[in-house]
Amino acid sequence: MIRDDAPAKIRLYLDLPLGDGGLLEPSPAQCHYLLTVMRRRDGDTVALFNGREGEWLARIEVFERRRCRLHIERQSRPQRPEPGPALLFAPLKRFRQEFLIEKATELGVALLAPVLCRRSVVDRINRNRLVSIAIEAAEQCGRLTLPEVDQAMPLAERLAARANGHCLFVGDETGSGQPVADAFDEHGLGDLLIGPEGGFDPEEMAELREHDGVIPISLGPRTLRAETAALAALACWQALLADD
Amino acid sequence: MIRDDAPAKIRLYLDLPLGDGGLLEPSPAQCHYLLTVMRRRDGDTVALFNGREGEWLARIEVFERRRCRLHIERQSRPQRPEPGPALLFAPLKRFRQEFLIEKATELGVALLAPVLCRRSVVDRINRNRLVSIAIEAAEQCGRLTLPEVDQAMPLAERLAARANGHCLFVGDETGSGQPVADAFDEHGLGDLLIGPEGGFDPEEMAELREHDGVIPISLGPRTLRAETAALAALACWQALLADD
Repeated sequence: MIRDDAPAKIRLYLDLPLGDGGLLEPSPAQCHYLLTVMRRRDGDTVALFNGREGEWLARIEVFERRRCRLHIERQSRPQRPEPGPALLFAPLKRFRQEFLIEKATELGVALLAPVLCRRSVVDRINRNRLVSIAIEAAEQCGRLTLPEVDQAMPLAERLAARANGHCLFVGDETGSGQPVADAFDEHGLGDLLIGPEGGFDPEEMAELREHDGVIPISLGPRTLRAETAALAALACWQALLADD
Repeated sequence: MIRDDAPAKIRLYLDLPLGDGGLLEPSPAQCHYLLTVMRRRDGDTVALFNGREGEWLARIEVFERRRCRLHIERQSRPQRPEPGPALLFAPLKRFRQEFLIEKATELGVALLAPVLCRRSVVDRINRNRLVSIAIEAAEQCGRLTLPEVDQAMPLAERLAARANGHCLFVGDETGSGQPVADAFDEHGLGDLLIGPEGGFDPEEMAELREHDGVIPISLGPRTLRAETAALAALACWQALLADD
């Protein structure tokens, strides 16, 4: 019996079809999480999502003490669009990058696109690790989708690959960017680009300014760390441009 | 000779009077930072601030290889007001709390006030540790002031002690809060209160709503971790309410 009044406290992302009466086998890691970490018991419920078919409530059936199956009972939320911006960011050192991925996912980012800039000090990413962090954050914050996580690529290549026609708000620490709230108000929906620690190389910034649809923005008079700038811009995007 | 064209890359907070021609003795930890970590040499410059008298450029004089004195040469920035909100927050576990302090300092918080809520899982703070993190973040982001860091106190006591007449925007995850941009637009300057992981106890939230000047706000449809909610609210505050 599912208690409709109690919120489903545990949500799991599964890349499997979800539907009425389905029976699913979670991975050994997910079984461990449910039964050992979260101490769920036979008959308890868990919410499931796969990024495509909404959220479903399922009942846990425990067998062989450490393994379980999930019996899908009913849909708890239909799939709906979760519009969010792409975040183009220069890869950061491990701790700060993991934090950025977690927070950006909570703040509704649609695409995480690492870009290599001239002053990048980190030039590759562990994409699987970033995906794991994004999944955990999506499970925790109630999203119905995962953000896409791209491979790292040079900034110029990424700019050339953009095709959605949105403008690109670029964090500009030189003080000459448009205040973020004014820029969002004037230009509407757009993606976000935050450079590496230490900012863009001046020539790179000049090239960026020439690029079609690029709007340099200012996030205030303080020099923000790269991950702080990304999160501040995303938080403002959600507050000012999201229509949910 | 101070190179006016090169930005002073190192800033140190010193709780000492600053003025023309002053000669200062940094602490052994600061000497270590300047000479060993940052590899500064005799004659290099460093920027200094004390929270009261603006920012000053000083020349490093090295002696006995590992010690140094700082000769103040001139003021580089006058002191100016750095208005920011108070952030009342339920203490978090170590890693997330340290991140919160660093980011809130970068985002211009004026006062960090830990408050104990009914669902708080952490009930004390290491104030000295939090102050150290705030100093490092203030040095890095270019602030001329440090945020104040209070001792932890029960929420009711903290609410009773507020006397600035500002309203208090309270992160409300029940979905019934006013969207943050609308709330800031309607009510203007105010402080921020973010509850513990898992949110406020319902009775506590009901009491909060009865409190004079309390405005429940919504930060969007996702369930944000406590530190994410605090940073999102601060970023919006700076974008929408700061006049710098």
